[in-house]
Amino acid sequence: MVAMSQIRYPTGSAQWNTQKSTRDNHGGRGTRLESDLNDSNAYYRDTGRALIYKKPTPIQVVKVDYPARDRAKITEAYYRTPSTTDYNGVYRGKYIDFEAKETRNKTSFPLYMIHDHQIQHLEKVALHGGIGFFIIRFSTLNQTMLVDAGQLIEKIKSTTHASIPYPWFASHGIFIQEGLYPRLAYLDAVDTLYFSQNPPETDGQ
Amino acid sequence: MVAMSQIRYPTGSAQWNTQKSTRDNHGGRGTRLESDLNDSNAYYRDTGRALIYKKPTPIQVVKVDYPARDRAKITEAYYRTPSTTDYNGVYRGKYIDFEAKETRNKTSFPLYMIHDHQIQHLEKVALHGGIGFFIIRFSTLNQTMLVDAGQLIEKIKSTTHASIPYPWFASHGIFIQEGLYPRLAYLDAVDTLYFSQNPPETDGQ
Repeated sequence: MVAMSQIRYPTGSAQWNTQKSTRDNHGGRGTRLESDLNDSNAYYRDTGRALIYKKPTPIQVVKVDYPARDRAKITEAYYRTPSTTDYNGVYRGKYIDFEAKETRNKTSFPLYMIHDHQIQHLEKVALHGGIGFFIIRFSTLNQTMLVDAGQLIEKIKSTTHASIPYPWFASHGIFIQEGLYPRLAYLDAVDTLYFSQNPPETDGQ
Repeated sequence: MVAMSQIRYPTGSAQWNTQKSTRDNHGGRGTRLESDLNDSNAYYRDTGRALIYKKPTPIQVVKVDYPARDRAKITEAYYRTPSTTDYNGVYRGKYIDFEAKETRNKTSFPLYMIHDHQIQHLEKVALHGGIGFFIIRFSTLNQTMLVDAGQLIEKIKSTTHASIPYPWFASHGIFIQEGLYPRLAYLDAVDTLYFSQNPPETDGQ
């Protein structure tokens, strides 16, 4: 008999430990949440449920070499700050747009992780009739939640603190079921929040 | 009196002459059409009419140096083939998705410029209830047209030729008005095609 703690999971705890930071990732260093969402979006596309992609990281190319014909090698480039959110697409005829953030904090979500341009972009999404939200993961608690963008932005604008307590998310967000296919069943949360009879309410809390 | 041919336009004919290719551009080498569309989208965003962006070119980063703190310098990277189209966003509550192509041919549009993944993506956009189209510019003729994706894809699938004659575009596309603000009034063509009483018909031609 093998004790659970002795089993070496090839992609489980190892992957977890090599995760470098819960801060915004730049290009190569994808977070585990990002990888879960990419898998989920691929599953949703393959099954024809939705057409949602992560946008490529914007990169400013400065120098390009052509070591071989038809093979451009970029030799100098820099990450640029995106002007929008990371994910968008179409689901049930509606425009979908969201940002995903992961924190290891157990008690609150730090607001420095949400940038002004993301807030402004998601406000415009709502103005144009799209559906905008945040996917927030408390990775230490193993909980991922979907929160309507309008609700979270209202909360951000009304608070004077540098973070929003976990209980606010627990009461205002929809818990996202984790599994294998899809890794994150976040479209079920979208159904609940935007396609059921009770649209999300803003309560100013 | 100065003859027209002697006037040197700072961004007109000069820009035209430095344009390297009418083939697909990779990263740095944007086409004039791409630049016109970026300007138009910025104008539409600023005036609150629509929220449409060009997606960043996907780049696979291989090596990153950190010559200074907080300043990552990419020293080896390669262009990747996109799996979607170049532009998407939201307009009048609908998901908008399109690809833009420019040819210097005067009599026909070469089909090698439209890739399989773009066709497949735009077919899925329609399935999910989004609006998908192509913007095709015949740059030598100074004409830019918007064509419904379903119509053009149907034509591509039914032809055995390597190109589609200009007259097909003239009769099935909507001419896009060029100006200063916006450079390309392509949303007027979207209004005509998708938001008027007569939706686009497919006729199998």
